[in-house]
Formats: sequence, C-alpha cells, structure tokens
Amino acid sequence: MPGEFEPHAGCWMLFPERQDVWRGQAKPAQAAFAAVATAIAEFEPVTVCATQAMWQTAREIMPDHIRVLELSSNDAWIRDCGPTFVKNAAGELLGIDWEFNAWGGRNGGLYENWTQDNLVAQKVTDIVGAKLYKSGLFCEGGAIHADGEGTLITTKSCVQNPNRNPDLSEAEIDQIFSDTLGIDKVIWLDVEGADETDGHVDAICCFVRPGVLMLAWTDNEHMYEYEECRAVLKQLEATTDAKGRKFEIIKLPVADMPPTTAAEISDILVVDGSFPREANEPVFGGYINFFIANGGVVVPQFGVATDQAALDIIAKAFPNRKVVGVDGCREISMGGGNIHCITQQQPIGKGALR
Amino acid sequence: MPGEFEPHAGCWMLFPERQDVWRGQAKPAQAAFAAVATAIAEFEPVTVCATQAMWQTAREIMPDHIRVLELSSNDAWIRDCGPTFVKNAAGELLGIDWEFNAWGGRNGGLYENWTQDNLVAQKVTDIVGAKLYKSGLFCEGGAIHADGEGTLITTKSCVQNPNRNPDLSEAEIDQIFSDTLGIDKVIWLDVEGADETDGHVDAICCFVRPGVLMLAWTDNEHMYEYEECRAVLKQLEATTDAKGRKFEIIKLPVADMPPTTAAEISDILVVDGSFPREANEPVFGGYINFFIANGGVVVPQFGVATDQAALDIIAKAFPNRKVVGVDGCREISMGGGNIHCITQQQPIGKGALR
Repeated sequence: MPGEFEPHAGCWMLFPERQDVWRGQAKPAQAAFAAVATAIAEFEPVTVCATQAMWQTAREIMPDHIRVLELSSNDAWIRDCGPTFVKNAAGELLGIDWEFNAWGGRNGGLYENWTQDNLVAQKVTDIVGAKLYKSGLFCEGGAIHADGEGTLITTKSCVQNPNRNPDLSEAEIDQIFSDTLGIDKVIWLDVEGADETDGHVDAICCFVRPGVLMLAWTDNEHMYEYEECRAVLKQLEATTDAKGRKFEIIKLPVADMPPTTAAEISDILVVDGSFPREANEPVFGGYINFFIANGGVVVPQFGVATDQAALDIIAKAFPNRKVVGVDGCREISMGGGNIHCITQQQPIGKGALR
Repeated sequence: MPGEFEPHAGCWMLFPERQDVWRGQAKPAQAAFAAVATAIAEFEPVTVCATQAMWQTAREIMPDHIRVLELSSNDAWIRDCGPTFVKNAAGELLGIDWEFNAWGGRNGGLYENWTQDNLVAQKVTDIVGAKLYKSGLFCEGGAIHADGEGTLITTKSCVQNPNRNPDLSEAEIDQIFSDTLGIDKVIWLDVEGADETDGHVDAICCFVRPGVLMLAWTDNEHMYEYEECRAVLKQLEATTDAKGRKFEIIKLPVADMPPTTAAEISDILVVDGSFPREANEPVFGGYINFFIANGGVVVPQFGVATDQAALDIIAKAFPNRKVVGVDGCREISMGGGNIHCITQQQPIGKGALR
C-alpha cells in the first residue's frame, strides 16, 4: 500500500444527497464537496460518483473538468467504502475490498442499509480496470494510514471492535494487513474511539512521509482531544516504524468548533433507519483530515482562529507542495468527517486506466 | 466520424433487463449479450453497463476481463442511445450526443420513458474523459454508417421522419451531419422503414472499407427485404461517395427466420408504457448487423441454413480479420436488433481513457 504522499493517477469522491445526514436538502454539502473537488482537480484528475437520481445535479454542480459518473452509494464517504488501492510486486494496481457495515452494523452502524456502499470498492476497481482482492476484513479506509514502507497505523477501537471483526484476533488482523497491504508492522493505537467511526486514525494522525507523522493536538483541556492526543503521542514516541525508525512528530492544532446549533440541524430529515442528528453535538475540527494530492495538500478550513496556523504548519511540513485551504468545511464536519473522509486516492499503477 | 473498421479503443454495451422486451426474465438475452461481449473481448476491451439493480447480476454473468459499470438505461441498445464518437482535427476524441426518443417518441416510440437512455451518451463520454457535443438532432447510431472519408449513409424514413425531426429540412440535417461528423456527402436511402426503428441503415448495408459496401440481400420473394434490397442496390449503384467513387457492393444473405412463436413470447411481460410483443411477428435475420472489431468481425448466427454462407462472404470481404460467429442471436433479434445494435465502438482518440 503506497503512502498517500506517493504519486496519484487521480482522486475519487462520492456526491452527498442523504437528507437525513446533510442539512438543507444536502445543497450546502454539495457545494462544499464541489469546492473540495475543484481544489484537488488543480493537482490531479478528480472523479465524482453520483446515484442515478443525482447524476444530472452533480454534473451541473461540478466543473466540466471533473468527471461525474453514475455509481450508487448509501452516503458520501468513499474513503471508507471505496477500495484501498495497492500495487503488487510487478507494479500492477489492485483494489482491496474491505467489508463495510456503515461503521458498526447492527451495533452502532449509522444507517440500516449499506448494500450500495459495500459495492463501491468493487465498482470503482472495475471502472479503473484493476484486479479486485476481497479481504474479508471489516475495515474502512479512514481506519488505516500507511507509510508505503511497511508500516500501518490504526486503532483497536475501530478494527478490533466486536461490531467489525468479533472473531479475529489482533494477530489474525495483522496477517490480513500483511497479505493485502504488504504491511510488516501494525501500530495499534489505544484510543477511546467515542466518535461515530469508533476512532478512525485519519482524525488523529497521518504520515507526512516515512518516519514523519503529523498529530492532531490541542492544549485546550475542555476539548475531547486533550487527553487523547497526549496518550497517542506517548504511544507513538515509545514505538518505531517497520524500518526501526523513531517517529518525528509534528503537532497540528484541532479547531475548537462550536457544537451544532438548533438552526443548523433544523431541516435535517429524521427518517427510519438512520441516527437522528441533534443540536449541541460536537463538530469535528480536524485539519488533520487533509488530502495529499500530486504537488498539493488540500486542507479543511472552518472559519475559526486556528485556520491560518494549521495551513502554515502543513506548508512547513510539505515544503514541495502547494497548500490550499477549502473554506466552508464545517458543512462536511457536520456530516461526520472531512476532506480525507470524502476522498480516495488512486495511486499510479500498471494495468489501470488513469 | 471514423469508419467502424478503423482502430478502436474498445467497445461499449448495455445489459438487458426489461421483462416487457426480453423473455424469460431477460435471462436468455443476458446470456446472448455475454456471448457477444466475450466474442468481441477477444479483439478489444469491452465495457458492459448495467443499472444499479442489475449490476451484481451483470458482474456475475460477464467474464472477469469484461468491465462492468453501473450506468442506467431504459433498454439495451447502446448503438442508438450511446454517443457517436468522432475525432476533431487535432485527433481528440469527442462524443456526439444525439437526442433520443425511443425510436419515435409519442408517435411510434417503443416505450414511454426514455430519460435514462437519453443520458447514456453523456455519461459514457464523461467516463471516457472526452468532450461532449450536443447535436440537437433526433438520431440514433443505428441510423448512420460512415466511411471515415466524408460519406454518410442513412435513411429518410428514420432521420427525416416527423417523429424525429419535424422541423428540419434535408439540407439542414445535412448541415448538422457536416458540423458534428465532418460529413461531405449524405446518401439518403429511400426505404419504407416499416420496422420498429423506422428503417435503420444498420439493418440494410454497411461499409467494409471506403468505396466498398455490404448489402443485405435476399432472392426470396416472400421476404420483406426482397423489394427493399433491390431498390437500395439501384440507388447505391446510381450514386458516388464523397470522394466521387462508385461503390463496390457485396451481397450478404438475410436469414429467413421463422416468426415469433407463442411459446417464445409467452412469458414476456405486458406492462403499461411499452408495446406488447405478439406471436407471429417477424424476427430480424440480419447478418449485416455484425460488429467490426480490431482485427475481427463478430457476426450473428441464427441456427439456420445461411449461417455459414454469411460467415464465408464476410470472411472474404475482410481478409485481414478473424470472423467469429456468435450462436443464439435469435434471442437478440427477438428484442428488435442484433450485434451492431447492442454495441458502440470507441475509436482511438487523443485525450480519452482507453
């Protein structure tokens, strides 16, 4: 599994439409997704997938140079339901298909029916013309970060959760990551995982390059992340990567986001089969959820005081990339993730289109 | 517009599912389409597009090396609702988007709702990454054959039909073919066009190469085509192509097909909004409806006496291509067309995927 910082053939996204997840008939979210797609398309080809019902809308909203395909899903998080692309020894692209159960299935899943989500990986891989490998593991792309040199970081709270893989031991999961992603060492972070994803690593830390991590950090005792980031730092400082290197760790602020207001959630539909949204829920402030593109980094902006500082830190960490902030990303956070969660890179690999 | 005999990047197909068109829950037709796709895939990449409902079925039925995409349609005739691909002066691929009204709209259209069919050209062109040109002309790919050197053959009964383009003169349509396809001379065949398509040219004749045509021919006075093929021959012999050449014309038999039996149509659903199928309807026996692939010609076979003779004539006309017959094509004929009608070539062009 290549690191996200390695060369991409392009980036894949889905188009948001669920009115029980996204407010205002999903229109503000659609505009935010279009802004993200447009920002990434400055660096690499972007494909946005929409359902039959929304294809024409998506085609109208997205700029002409962004490809819009018909491809069904149950929501808009292709990082999690899409394929994890890897390259084999011959350099050929393969799509790894995780089992997907909407972040917990019957025990914490966010909606009742995820059949279309669970086909996204296979469909995208087919479009690309790559071979598919069905892993059998319940996992999501947002639960794993790899350095392209044999190291994977993930969390016990998610992948070892009984609502994902009740019958697999840690060693058995390590073996699957080895078989599917070519991983030599899995670093299992101990976090509480109280969020909807049960603690996705892409809300916590990520690789800047092999040996260098960026870690979401706050010195604000009132924030949920205060204890967690300290525990994660301690754990990361005490370990090494697959090559035996100690990590260099760069701290990136977490935006202190106001919780959802009653006005914000007032027109989100409450329907059977999904979690109702409520006022005063926490809103994810993770700049860490950026997307590394070819020659660029695309970073959420929330309209809060830390926005510029986050851009500056990322720019310093990625001196050879153009760092672009996308305004209005609170809209995506209210759905439960951010730029990294709604994107999936396709590395350059032999035998694949694009 | 390149000739079909010029190099392809690949071939596009749709997946049949309508139970008011295809008997046996469309399963026999699906098997026939798979046989066609498999035959063509020997020569060039094949992509089959299925609706969300049928994607998994299509993926299971089609061999692994055939790409299966989710892409909605109202039936299975991509020759007609798909894009006509052309190349501009710079060699870039463009998709021409005809207006599609199910072969006649409110006056003879075969079903009531063709909204998804009418998006196929745009969607396929978007997948390919080519530019789209909306022609504004009601036309179908099966209504036109081009020689790649400025000549187009079509029929008045179809493209000049008031159920397609009531407000356009022949000269105005010629101008649209010039603007969109780079055509210098349109040959307008005078045929009755009594079939469901109002006389598609791809059931009558086609280009083997510039200057050489193949013409569906019968000496059986009892067949519908008896008068028609003589009239068409006379018209073609009396004209020249865009380069001023007289045509060399190769006669290809029409299979004398038994009409539909009561047993054959017994489980075709009769539903609101589409034409009911009846027993004793004529079944299209056109070997002429073959598909020219890279290095191959894929020809319908009907299990009748003329099958081998048709293959031999086509093999002689295309000495540098492997001619492959596909058995069981009566199944496709019962839906209203054959191999050419269910395929659409994508020529090799700059700026496009595949």
